[in-house]
Amino acid sequence: MNLDAYFEEFAARDWQTVDEGTVRVALVGLGGFAREHVLPALAGGARSDGTTDRTDLCEVTALVSGSREKAESVADEYGVDTILDYDQFEAGEGVDAFDAVYVAGPNALHLDYARTAAGHGKHVLCEKPIEVNADRAREMVRACEDAGVTLMVAYRPQVEPAMRRLREMVRDGILGDPVAFHGWFSGHILRQAGPDQWRLDPEMAGGGALMDVGVYPLNAVRFLLDADPVAARATTHSPDDEFTGVDEHVAFQLEFPDAVTASCSASYRAQADDRLRLVGTEGQAVLNPAFDSESHPTLTVECGDERVEYTGPYVNEVAEEFDYFAHCVLADATPEPDGRDSVADVETVEAIYESAETGRRVEVGDVNV
Amino acid sequence: MNLDAYFEEFAARDWQTVDEGTVRVALVGLGGFAREHVLPALAGGARSDGTTDRTDLCEVTALVSGSREKAESVADEYGVDTILDYDQFEAGEGVDAFDAVYVAGPNALHLDYARTAAGHGKHVLCEKPIEVNADRAREMVRACEDAGVTLMVAYRPQVEPAMRRLREMVRDGILGDPVAFHGWFSGHILRQAGPDQWRLDPEMAGGGALMDVGVYPLNAVRFLLDADPVAARATTHSPDDEFTGVDEHVAFQLEFPDAVTASCSASYRAQADDRLRLVGTEGQAVLNPAFDSESHPTLTVECGDERVEYTGPYVNEVAEEFDYFAHCVLADATPEPDGRDSVADVETVEAIYESAETGRRVEVGDVNV
Repeated sequence: MNLDAYFEEFAARDWQTVDEGTVRVALVGLGGFAREHVLPALAGGARSDGTTDRTDLCEVTALVSGSREKAESVADEYGVDTILDYDQFEAGEGVDAFDAVYVAGPNALHLDYARTAAGHGKHVLCEKPIEVNADRAREMVRACEDAGVTLMVAYRPQVEPAMRRLREMVRDGILGDPVAFHGWFSGHILRQAGPDQWRLDPEMAGGGALMDVGVYPLNAVRFLLDADPVAARATTHSPDDEFTGVDEHVAFQLEFPDAVTASCSASYRAQADDRLRLVGTEGQAVLNPAFDSESHPTLTVECGDERVEYTGPYVNEVAEEFDYFAHCVLADATPEPDGRDSVADVETVEAIYESAETGRRVEVGDVNV
Repeated sequence: MNLDAYFEEFAARDWQTVDEGTVRVALVGLGGFAREHVLPALAGGARSDGTTDRTDLCEVTALVSGSREKAESVADEYGVDTILDYDQFEAGEGVDAFDAVYVAGPNALHLDYARTAAGHGKHVLCEKPIEVNADRAREMVRACEDAGVTLMVAYRPQVEPAMRRLREMVRDGILGDPVAFHGWFSGHILRQAGPDQWRLDPEMAGGGALMDVGVYPLNAVRFLLDADPVAARATTHSPDDEFTGVDEHVAFQLEFPDAVTASCSASYRAQADDRLRLVGTEGQAVLNPAFDSESHPTLTVECGDERVEYTGPYVNEVAEEFDYFAHCVLADATPEPDGRDSVADVETVEAIYESAETGRRVEVGDVNV
């Protein structure tokens, strides 16, 4: 095996064809992730080594929030001129100030915000999961297609260099034929944000640990295999009162074409950890950590008796993700994690929940957008 | 967390109460594992550092084989006086030369050999899996109980120090409440032994990758949790002709009490690898490698932000296993991997295969011996 080629330009933006232009982004929703990760990445967060992680191809020019006070504080800190409440956003005020929106907030509101943005002719970067069910996800895809705007769903790992290099190795047959995937994402949501949050509201979230963190290994295995699952088998458990109505723990097994399986689990109440492993007939790869937004992954590849362990240069995944989105807008390219990609995730989520409820193997519905 | 206590006497034989006496063992079947691993361990195999791995409490005093030539060659090499063919063994010839038998060979023959041994009043150490189905496994248990002889099934990992220390940590709550287990065991059986072998014969083996290697993570998670699975969901695949009638790849998911799940997979045609991971509410542990007979495992334990990675002194697992068995005979103690333990494994295997065939969640039958 010769893996040198994959490590030589490890963090190069293999997707980039355009390096000029700026996409002006309105943040819709100023929750924790937007304030702590998105704004610093877009506005130039300082890193401990003195460099910054600032995006090259986009900037924040507008904030949409239900809290004027919070929005003003953020606007001051990051030098943003346009502040809108949700009614103003809906009515189309200030639309000249931005070219695209970043939709965060409760999953069940994504469609409404995206539809509003598309109606104003704005491109959409929507947080994952795209929506609470596949019907609403398909509606979003249609709304964006009808308006002729770009729709991307914010699966950071798809632009993370280690994940992209691993996919190239899989495509090139470095691991032989893929055989089995194992993936895991867990943490303590109650310790992070307490019990009073939309992620624990089944109406707003559409599910629990699977919807919020389990979708990462689900999306990753589809990305790495370049294939969609055929069927799902799953178990969900919610032993603790705080998780009534949403899955606290989930374990799901997916069948892919060509006899490949994925064994995944996720939890809202377990030691924080996220990793994946893909085993093939001639080798295997481990990515650890694999999904966390602040991760600096180590990629370990074994083929026969050879073993390479590699940690690439640190890349701010959020900045990378926003630049990838902006690049797709500027280059008029379709993002890989587009609406169709995310509809497939949510269709799989629906099969997983149905399997957990019925105890049966459930085939994943065809993706008909 | 204070883990020092677990590492201080890492490889101490916590199970040992008797250190005198010798159990004389007859090897029934002289296949590759018996010749390459068992005989050197029992007769004092030399290690590269000059020490030996010899067992303290047992020795080989008889060989049962269908090949006189092979048996004589082995007898010469290891100084064994008694050689029997299967008819002689059945008829009770030479029974004064041994106290116990080690039953290897095709799974479907284990019951017959064990019953013969028990009929002669000999203790039984039987290779895993105990038999091809739960009915035959139960028969073996009854035969040994009726004869008043010890029955142990050769799950080496249960005497491997890292596995035992990890179980103590789980019992002591070091990881909090267990949440999810992931386990994997794979290799290339065709490259090891070609297509003409009993492991690929469904009648002789009772199954494929699950029966041979998948039972390791299955047995390990039961050992670590000290619990039996409630239900199974599974997928099997055999895309290649050599595996017609047995599972080439298997992925199985087990439900345990208290909302714990196990996500496991095994393969007869994939990069050789074996490891396990147990995640709890307050920590997680990885054992890698976990199941191979020549493994020298590294145990990694994380609790919150603390992390300990530890590789204990090398222990010859086969010697350890035989001494544990001999100790149970000498001390009149019941082995942990006894017949009942193994019946539970095979009942779970049956649920797994039924789930793979029907697509349904299958409850694991009660263990009624």
